[in-house]
Amino acid sequence: RSAAHVVLIGGDGIGPEVVEAAAQCLEEAANLAGREVRFTRAAGGGEAIDRGLGPMPDATIQACLHSDGVLLGAVGGPRWDRLPGALRPEAGLLELRRALGAFANIRPVRLFEGLEDATPLRPEVARGTDLVIVRELLGGLYYGARGRRDQDGRILAFDTMEYADVEIDRVARFAFELARKRRRKLCLVDKANILETSRLWRERVESLAGEYPDVECTYQYVDSCAMKLVQSPRSLDVLLCENTFGDILSDEAAVLAGSLGMLASASIGGPVGLYEPVHGTAPDIAGQGLANPIGAILSAALLARLDLQWDDVAAMIEEAVAATLQEGFRTRDLVAGRATEGAGGGAGTPAVRVVGTREMTAQILERLPLFA
Amino acid sequence: RSAAHVVLIGGDGIGPEVVEAAAQCLEEAANLAGREVRFTRAAGGGEAIDRGLGPMPDATIQACLHSDGVLLGAVGGPRWDRLPGALRPEAGLLELRRALGAFANIRPVRLFEGLEDATPLRPEVARGTDLVIVRELLGGLYYGARGRRDQDGRILAFDTMEYADVEIDRVARFAFELARKRRRKLCLVDKANILETSRLWRERVESLAGEYPDVECTYQYVDSCAMKLVQSPRSLDVLLCENTFGDILSDEAAVLAGSLGMLASASIGGPVGLYEPVHGTAPDIAGQGLANPIGAILSAALLARLDLQWDDVAAMIEEAVAATLQEGFRTRDLVAGRATEGAGGGAGTPAVRVVGTREMTAQILERLPLFA
Ligand SMILES: CC(C)[C@H](C(=O)O)[C@@H](O)C(=O)O
Ligand SMILES: CC(C)[C@H](C(=O)O)[C@@H](O)C(=O)O
Repeated sequence: RSAAHVVLIGGDGIGPEVVEAAAQCLEEAANLAGREVRFTRAAGGGEAIDRGLGPMPDATIQACLHSDGVLLGAVGGPRWDRLPGALRPEAGLLELRRALGAFANIRPVRLFEGLEDATPLRPEVARGTDLVIVRELLGGLYYGARGRRDQDGRILAFDTMEYADVEIDRVARFAFELARKRRRKLCLVDKANILETSRLWRERVESLAGEYPDVECTYQYVDSCAMKLVQSPRSLDVLLCENTFGDILSDEAAVLAGSLGMLASASIGGPVGLYEPVHGTAPDIAGQGLANPIGAILSAALLARLDLQWDDVAAMIEEAVAATLQEGFRTRDLVAGRATEGAGGGAGTPAVRVVGTREMTAQILERLPLFA
Repeated sequence: RSAAHVVLIGGDGIGPEVVEAAAQCLEEAANLAGREVRFTRAAGGGEAIDRGLGPMPDATIQACLHSDGVLLGAVGGPRWDRLPGALRPEAGLLELRRALGAFANIRPVRLFEGLEDATPLRPEVARGTDLVIVRELLGGLYYGARGRRDQDGRILAFDTMEYADVEIDRVARFAFELARKRRRKLCLVDKANILETSRLWRERVESLAGEYPDVECTYQYVDSCAMKLVQSPRSLDVLLCENTFGDILSDEAAVLAGSLGMLASASIGGPVGLYEPVHGTAPDIAGQGLANPIGAILSAALLARLDLQWDDVAAMIEEAVAATLQEGFRTRDLVAGRATEGAGGGAGTPAVRVVGTREMTAQILERLPLFA
């Protein structure tokens, strides 16, 4: 029996803490399922810059390419904000995404039972949210030509949003297939009333829609979608977005899940997938054991499901997370402002217990065997 | 005594209905204040296209340039979606914005008392929202070079996000000045960890911040701001955004005000300002007398304040709107799903009365004298 080989890139801020928590859960769930996983730790982001290795060392990229899946924490922070663009931690992340050929970024947004209190939305609006944002990850403004030029003494800066038909088709097909496995509703998010790239997106998606007659395909302008997302989230199933729009909408959608700390992502399409929590490095709470590890833990579950084809392991992790939340355990980000420690939601709801990264992870680990 | 001269461009869908409502309120309030206003109606958008005049006739632009202020409904609709980009209604709007030199788009977002029920947010989150989005309106992806090219049989589409230092400075100064008149907090929204244009925005704003030491200036990535906006809106005062980011965030912010139908905008910076409700043409309810006229009516108030310097008229309109809402009058968009007709909010709250465009306008007109 050969072990699965997973590369861990902690990165910066709270990245290393949450990645270790996720690795523990993945290892334990794999063991319970009679499977084996081996980890290699690799450098990336600001900490790699500080060690003189640049934002994404070649050795890391090679290790990733030879692995069965990559779990990354987060990169970046004010410490490196003054570096020129190409030398920043974020440039390293873009490089890794490209090296892995990860063109489809999948961001499931689901409100776990018991977290209705954690969202700024009315419970009756947020309840039942279960959508997925499919964000194109290797094109658009993120990878187009950018720079500055001097024009009669004025400084001009530019970025380019660029898409080729084939880049649209591959991620759109992925989104159609995903919709088929869900509620069969796909919505393309664009700004086709203004942007030429958006018009190409619309044409391609319209032409592919013919091949997926069982999927209901609609179109929405990004501004209007930003509103719908918090107004009637239950009406949404799969949202297909170009890179920048997907970046903005998926952070916005975080409020539907109670906290950015809850969200996982998978970047796939190439030989090996990259799995990351959606939250950033949160430098203000780094190293204090306060971070919510669930985004990273659910990312490990996605890795198990999508890269390793270990559905049993993925389900075990997801159910243990759900059970832990149902029993009232919360990291700080999930109680901000509303539910207070010790307060029960009434009528049989367990009391809220505010815990740190370590305790939350321990609680999840403890519940894994229940779902083995 | 010379009359103020206002150009009305109804445009498409519900545009004409709401512009007429707003013109009535402006005229009546002006009369009550002993002032005079004259209107000229001009063509623009899809209806102008249908009449063979193109999306923004030259005569309209000339009329606007010779007026004291322009009130526009909305343009666009599925009817014209198949036209090439440059011939679409939206292209006409961009042309008008440019012809007027309107580089600063001001979008106040305020939750009126009594509308707490209309937002999908928890009342305790939304209550007290009072922020302004300052959106750059003549640069970025909207006006940069765009097109397609063929590359080895693949179709490539592109749009360009471009900003010159002077374009940033003028709108940033405007935002700093505005913050000074408010709670003295300015937040620049960008994606400086990736985009070169964003880095130029940040440099310019950082350097201008020195001239406004009394304004607290912060920086936030657009993805993270999309989350904050619905998570802790009260913490925000003035948000400065490039064109596309401002477009997305201001629609999202609409949920804070209860409905997109509530939001007004002013596009200023040139010799004459352009005032528009933020909502679109809503083709599904056009011509049925159901549209919420308040976005347009509050836009007329902004016109009075900013272009005509008629503070008394502006205040009269705004207070009449607030009073009408306080007494329970609501258009359909403000009751969707929650408060039901006839239901009172309890404890002295008046019963909700669902009305159409005409009745809402009549109620506001009726209350103007109370604030004269
Ligand atoms: C750190 C940054 C480059 C990244 C992105 O925008 O892709 C992050 O915001 C994300 O969404 O994963
Ligand atoms: C119709 C469209 C061009 C316009 C824009 O994006 O500027 C609208 O969405 C707005 O926000 O005023």
